[in-house]
Amino acid sequence: MNAEIISVGSELLLGQIVNTNAAYLSQELAILGVNVFHQTTVGDNDTRLTEALIQAKKRSDLIILTGGLGPTKDDLTKESVARFVGKPLVHHEQSLHNIEEFFKKRNRPMSDNNRKQALVIEGSHVLMNHFGMAPGMVVTFEGVLFVLLPGPPKEMKPMFTNELLPYITAQVGSRESITSRVLRFFDIGESQLETDLLDIIEGQTNPTIAPLASEGEVTLRLTVKHADEKEQQRLLDETEALITNRVGDYLYGYGDTSLIEQLFIQLQQKQVTIASAESLTGGKFSGMLTSFAGSSSVFRGGVVSYATDVKEKVLGVQGDIINKFGVISSQCAKEMARCAKDQYRAEIAISFTGVAGPARQEEKEPGTVFIGIAGLTKEPLSYELNLAGGREAIRDRAIKYGCFYLLNELKRWNKAE
Amino acid sequence: MNAEIISVGSELLLGQIVNTNAAYLSQELAILGVNVFHQTTVGDNDTRLTEALIQAKKRSDLIILTGGLGPTKDDLTKESVARFVGKPLVHHEQSLHNIEEFFKKRNRPMSDNNRKQALVIEGSHVLMNHFGMAPGMVVTFEGVLFVLLPGPPKEMKPMFTNELLPYITAQVGSRESITSRVLRFFDIGESQLETDLLDIIEGQTNPTIAPLASEGEVTLRLTVKHADEKEQQRLLDETEALITNRVGDYLYGYGDTSLIEQLFIQLQQKQVTIASAESLTGGKFSGMLTSFAGSSSVFRGGVVSYATDVKEKVLGVQGDIINKFGVISSQCAKEMARCAKDQYRAEIAISFTGVAGPARQEEKEPGTVFIGIAGLTKEPLSYELNLAGGREAIRDRAIKYGCFYLLNELKRWNKAE
Repeated sequence: MNAEIISVGSELLLGQIVNTNAAYLSQELAILGVNVFHQTTVGDNDTRLTEALIQAKKRSDLIILTGGLGPTKDDLTKESVARFVGKPLVHHEQSLHNIEEFFKKRNRPMSDNNRKQALVIEGSHVLMNHFGMAPGMVVTFEGVLFVLLPGPPKEMKPMFTNELLPYITAQVGSRESITSRVLRFFDIGESQLETDLLDIIEGQTNPTIAPLASEGEVTLRLTVKHADEKEQQRLLDETEALITNRVGDYLYGYGDTSLIEQLFIQLQQKQVTIASAESLTGGKFSGMLTSFAGSSSVFRGGVVSYATDVKEKVLGVQGDIINKFGVISSQCAKEMARCAKDQYRAEIAISFTGVAGPARQEEKEPGTVFIGIAGLTKEPLSYELNLAGGREAIRDRAIKYGCFYLLNELKRWNKAE
Repeated sequence: MNAEIISVGSELLLGQIVNTNAAYLSQELAILGVNVFHQTTVGDNDTRLTEALIQAKKRSDLIILTGGLGPTKDDLTKESVARFVGKPLVHHEQSLHNIEEFFKKRNRPMSDNNRKQALVIEGSHVLMNHFGMAPGMVVTFEGVLFVLLPGPPKEMKPMFTNELLPYITAQVGSRESITSRVLRFFDIGESQLETDLLDIIEGQTNPTIAPLASEGEVTLRLTVKHADEKEQQRLLDETEALITNRVGDYLYGYGDTSLIEQLFIQLQQKQVTIASAESLTGGKFSGMLTSFAGSSSVFRGGVVSYATDVKEKVLGVQGDIINKFGVISSQCAKEMARCAKDQYRAEIAISFTGVAGPARQEEKEPGTVFIGIAGLTKEPLSYELNLAGGREAIRDRAIKYGCFYLLNELKRWNKAE
């Protein structure tokens, strides 16, 4: 099955936004074993969009369009495709209801052009939008599948995964099916990982092993082709064992699970409560941890001790520790964690202090980071890091290392009942 | 002049990397007044690349290709274009020298396939690569300009700016130039904004007005075409005045400035210190505010009072307020802000409490949000919101509203010296 992606939107041609949708869809389709040979971007222009549809139909079985489903005058993807496949636009009750609900929840008046969003191509399979107003749709025309998805990634991604994927999988289901398993590694570089596993990677054909690096993390995607599901899993397990046998210390999770999510899962499983004391990261760690539903079961709260006197007067770090070692020190990190643990009545606590930059602090270079962990050992632990990159990169990496260290400590640790 | 961008690389079609080059080039060309009507991505495949060239030549005067200039077998952009324009590849001395230097600097042996990178299309204008090895080139064929640039942004961007731009500007120099101004709005929907401004948007031709919605914000891009720079600004000012006259209350900033950044700028300008008390947002607000260098000059710190007893025992919210009104209440929001302001010795403070979901809390629906602001008025202020969307969308919108309310209050407020 050959697929092609048509991104619609003048904002893309003006370079106002980067086309992340094409990359996301291509990656998802690759996993499905669907070839993507073309990505095309056109503006909100009927003539050029129609030309693109003519081209695409000649060479592809599946054409996915994103964008141009909005309420405004310039949004015309739906209209152009309808004309192309020779079908009228018809009113879709469930979508209109969805749009009305959307405005009710916001106590906002619904303007007429929003009704336009409830129109769908006659005879199309409608994809519900649970994160926005514009419905997606699937139309078959002369054996070619046309899929219309909204432009905003927050709406497009869940619609693809939850509404479209089951539909497409059915189309390609007859073939030898493909599954992948993604192993997530941290604190090891891509080239190091590849070197350590070179013979395995080159020797493997089923599953194939594809390394991919992103933001200081490396993932290995194992992709297996087999008709039998049990056999798929057996082959994946076999290869995973070969890999973990060598670099298992760096493996922290699977699939899309980020370090912070893995930490959240671990804290829930071990039923341990945590508090945080953040200076360098300014609340970003706790902000991320609380992004997960049910985080209140493990997260007690935390202090963002940004100003130095706040560390002492509010958090309760002993003044002589600050005077003797400074706030950018392992001693201060340990003490911050200890104080947060006690003050917030949590079983464990983590702290972040350091220099995000661009300026130096206490004669220490940007990238100097100290992480403290209290409650898992008799005395608080501390870790020193020297991270490269800009201000935000340093803060983000510090959080990732904090999660990684905490995960490793939690592995060994068992709650005393 | 109509331009078109062809991105070459199988890694793009596999979704392994996001195509930021197309966005960058489109933006640069728009500023030059060059229309980009098509962006196409094909793999490292001679047949499909040649098809793309045939298509592009029919409709564009300027065709910019990125990628496929590397040393490996699969890199074939140069070869395909050479064949297409009927010119041989010839050895380029200066480029070979550049490549040899590149290896000398790194004390690495130069492999034979790197010599391939020193080949250029005969009669082309060569663009030197000062950040990599592959030279770029410009070829004119039957009145159409073909530009070949390397794929890595680190090499492509400087080559575009320093080598290609002077060349292209000469081609389009005679025409009028284009400038844009982006107005940023919040708390008004795209369709509402468009309805309010319909006659202006439709009546305007220079500058043109293009609305764009993204994550609860709406932007208007005013794009003006004129030879004289002063006149460009006058036309932009004129149109902005027409717009703000109607919807000025919703305008919060310009260009790429986010709400939180605008707040940071305002706090710095008014030299006022702030603290935060976050329940719903769990530290995300302070995490965002501290992402800006120099945030320590305005941000004192904050408490993440996630567990209810933390609000009382650590933050100091009076127990009877919680018992009487609950933690999801305007009274609690006000008290949280007041306590944070005092405890962290800041001039003002903001608080966030509410239900992120998915579960209800205190019989209140997800999306119920209360924001408190202390220090700007005699008594703390509070705002109630009913937000739609998932857990993270609710938290993010709450933060945006918090920034928006605070910005509006700061407008009126002047620090008593």
